[in-house]
Amino acid sequence: MFQDFKFVSDRPVAIQVKEFVKRLIIKGALQADQKLPSTREMSGLLKVSRNTVIAAYEGLEDDGFTYAIPGKGNYVAAMVGQSAVDNGEADSSAAGQIDWKSRMNEYAVSAVELDMMKQGIRAKKGTISFTSIAPDEQLFDLGNVRRAFMDRMAIEGQVLLNYGYAKGYKPLIDYLMHYMENKGVDISGKDMLITSGFTEGFDIVLSALRPSARRGAAICENPTHHTAIKNLKLQGFEITGIPMEHDGIDVKQLEAVLQTKSFDLAYLTPSYHNPTGIVMSPKKRSTVMKLMMRYQIPVIEDGFNEELRYSGAHVAPLIATAGQGNGVIYIGSFSKVLFPGLRVGWVLGDQELIDTLVSIKRARTIHTSTIDQSILYQYLFNGNFDKYVKKARTEYKRKYELTKACCEAHLPDAQLSGDGGLHLFLTFPTGINTHQLLEACIEQGVIFTPGDRFFIQEGEGTNTLRLGFSRVTDENIKRGIQIIGKQVRSFLKV
Amino acid sequence: MFQDFKFVSDRPVAIQVKEFVKRLIIKGALQADQKLPSTREMSGLLKVSRNTVIAAYEGLEDDGFTYAIPGKGNYVAAMVGQSAVDNGEADSSAAGQIDWKSRMNEYAVSAVELDMMKQGIRAKKGTISFTSIAPDEQLFDLGNVRRAFMDRMAIEGQVLLNYGYAKGYKPLIDYLMHYMENKGVDISGKDMLITSGFTEGFDIVLSALRPSARRGAAICENPTHHTAIKNLKLQGFEITGIPMEHDGIDVKQLEAVLQTKSFDLAYLTPSYHNPTGIVMSPKKRSTVMKLMMRYQIPVIEDGFNEELRYSGAHVAPLIATAGQGNGVIYIGSFSKVLFPGLRVGWVLGDQELIDTLVSIKRARTIHTSTIDQSILYQYLFNGNFDKYVKKARTEYKRKYELTKACCEAHLPDAQLSGDGGLHLFLTFPTGINTHQLLEACIEQGVIFTPGDRFFIQEGEGTNTLRLGFSRVTDENIKRGIQIIGKQVRSFLKV
Repeated sequence: MFQDFKFVSDRPVAIQVKEFVKRLIIKGALQADQKLPSTREMSGLLKVSRNTVIAAYEGLEDDGFTYAIPGKGNYVAAMVGQSAVDNGEADSSAAGQIDWKSRMNEYAVSAVELDMMKQGIRAKKGTISFTSIAPDEQLFDLGNVRRAFMDRMAIEGQVLLNYGYAKGYKPLIDYLMHYMENKGVDISGKDMLITSGFTEGFDIVLSALRPSARRGAAICENPTHHTAIKNLKLQGFEITGIPMEHDGIDVKQLEAVLQTKSFDLAYLTPSYHNPTGIVMSPKKRSTVMKLMMRYQIPVIEDGFNEELRYSGAHVAPLIATAGQGNGVIYIGSFSKVLFPGLRVGWVLGDQELIDTLVSIKRARTIHTSTIDQSILYQYLFNGNFDKYVKKARTEYKRKYELTKACCEAHLPDAQLSGDGGLHLFLTFPTGINTHQLLEACIEQGVIFTPGDRFFIQEGEGTNTLRLGFSRVTDENIKRGIQIIGKQVRSFLKV
Repeated sequence: MFQDFKFVSDRPVAIQVKEFVKRLIIKGALQADQKLPSTREMSGLLKVSRNTVIAAYEGLEDDGFTYAIPGKGNYVAAMVGQSAVDNGEADSSAAGQIDWKSRMNEYAVSAVELDMMKQGIRAKKGTISFTSIAPDEQLFDLGNVRRAFMDRMAIEGQVLLNYGYAKGYKPLIDYLMHYMENKGVDISGKDMLITSGFTEGFDIVLSALRPSARRGAAICENPTHHTAIKNLKLQGFEITGIPMEHDGIDVKQLEAVLQTKSFDLAYLTPSYHNPTGIVMSPKKRSTVMKLMMRYQIPVIEDGFNEELRYSGAHVAPLIATAGQGNGVIYIGSFSKVLFPGLRVGWVLGDQELIDTLVSIKRARTIHTSTIDQSILYQYLFNGNFDKYVKKARTEYKRKYELTKACCEAHLPDAQLSGDGGLHLFLTFPTGINTHQLLEACIEQGVIFTPGDRFFIQEGEGTNTLRLGFSRVTDENIKRGIQIIGKQVRSFLKV
């Protein structure tokens, strides 16, 4: 049986020998109290050095899989608590089955039903995909990330690897508070919680604001970020959507709804709205804030991609517009701007509120990865952010303009929106159903995201789609949009 | 005002100049359309090179804080959407207040109430603290962690920094599946989800198994891990505790309870029980599994610190005892064994169950830090784990024996338990209240964890305490326990 041993070149051989023998014991190929080949024999059998075998045998004894009898050799220890089945009690009730499906609650079932990833569009190799709005990893400045890690490890490696604080990594919090202050935020009476990206921050806030007794009521832009819709539904909120205008949410309709119904919270993405890419005008921002405060509705502001706007003067976020008011919870993240792999986001809001959210965060995950937080902090501190964002903006803007030009050329019937970020949003004449369009395009090797999933009600936005261009080559942008155009025309002919 | 500029030595000066000027604009010290000093003037004012100023001004324009008029200079852009207050609308309802306290639901309120960290024992500097069971960071092999990071970044840096999978980092999953197989687990029909440590894994499992309509019913060892008690309560479970015997949970009482009441799940820590440090005997493991399966109760197995047992043969976990059965959800983590800062844990269980948990994980945090996962994977793959654990075991065992000896010398009335890990659990004669004892010891500069928080019912275990020795020096272990002993004697005299 020892002939089966194959080892990989780039791993310590002693470890591999140890695991190989462990395996034989587990599988029952080596029985309890059976003597192992001597280290000399084994080194011959496996064609590895004798010291390697000695090290491996020591490891096996450490883990309690073997015992040594001085002067005699190494023996297999009895496998206690081993599988009831291996013990020949195949019918043993210890090997019983649980019907997990019947144990899953509504939350778990909905989590699966609302999991877009599991209804993801399957496309064959070579397909041109406009579905992703993840950043283009070719732009990543890996050298600076490595340096940030090494810098931080050199300064306080031991601290980074031991427990951190639920609230977050202090230097990063200080940096981001300053960063938000530079967006015009009055930080007095406010505090910050670091989370594992926007999503965790949003989910934690919802879990604290969800009414205990009844279903919650949330108001938001329509369409809006589909992950936000998912989390609102999962937390038991009924969602009321307010249509978008070219300069942001329709304020008249917003006020009309506020007069008729009360809400537990509002979710808004004013600075770079997903999926439409619309930026809420400064005037609307203060109007919206006044409305929300008059009706006493907490506002969750999604800072989504405001760093990736391509033009125009700095527009202060809602939480800045609110001045000393405490009515806005701002959730920020650099996931789309920098590196999604670093799961770091931040929740900025009322001091007392944050203090409560810290306890929820601790109960859920203790704290966010200190390594991620410290890499991000050092990367920012080293001044890489501005350089990187400048580079990214330039490249994405170029792709954005290319995509826009192609759409204008090949999709003249589509109304475009978006002035930044990593995608464009298209609205077709109501005749066109983008799910059918997608079916046709898949045949031609092109996929995109049908827009209806960003809308609150079933059947809304069936004539819309989102084109993510961040990870598509220029060549494929041209070819892909041309193909979509061809399909659209054939639809219109019908 | 430019005289106030001070810069730190280790940061790009251009960034610092940019943020300094941004600040002046935000604060209103520089007004809209006001001309900035020329780059030459500014370099003189701030005593930095002119190129630095040029770079800083470009940055300001990129962020929309200034605009340039060719041939004339740089001007402050209007701060649109700026704080209502700064705009002199101090009474503006945009600056409104939300009474967050009244908005918090039961979950949020309980999260704060059950947050031990917030009722942590405040002790003055120089106090000898036995409260922590975090690893001793002096043992951390930082060099190997650095190498693991650099190795992985070199292989697939761009992949690590972009989005990963909710299920986890594939190489790590494969490694850990193999690792669990080597503990005797039959992995057929099973799958794995990577989580941000044990806590997230546990909380996700509970959120899926918590009954929708009624309060849940959970059964567990008494005492048990206080974080687990917290999460069970937060998820709305009523908890039934079963007393511990020297070889694990009291099986007779367990069966008696199972006959009278039905439960949604059991939470067990067989391999290194927290806080008692008791290891469940192999015989009890199969008895317990048979009972649980007969009564169809899903078992959540906490693999807590089984790697840090100091003696005895390998004991297969419950999930191995269950053979091909799917009734056990095993949650593992190396947090206490390796580095708590790497927030990585794993949930091993029935394939379909895991598939559901993956959707919940995605809804909560998208995925666990890929950097953390990849560092852990490469660290394990490089074969550092065995060496490190061997070193850690040796050092902790030494401290364990010292602590034990000191307890036997100075606390003869206390019954000790624990044969591994990073702490000892002490039970005193019922006369002694460990909260009062703690009060007395704080005076003498020694603190520990009163044991009652590990018990299910109020008022249980008031005569117990947990001594964590992992981060206490030999000197302080001796002195600290001597001091506790003195206080105990004075209590017994009374």
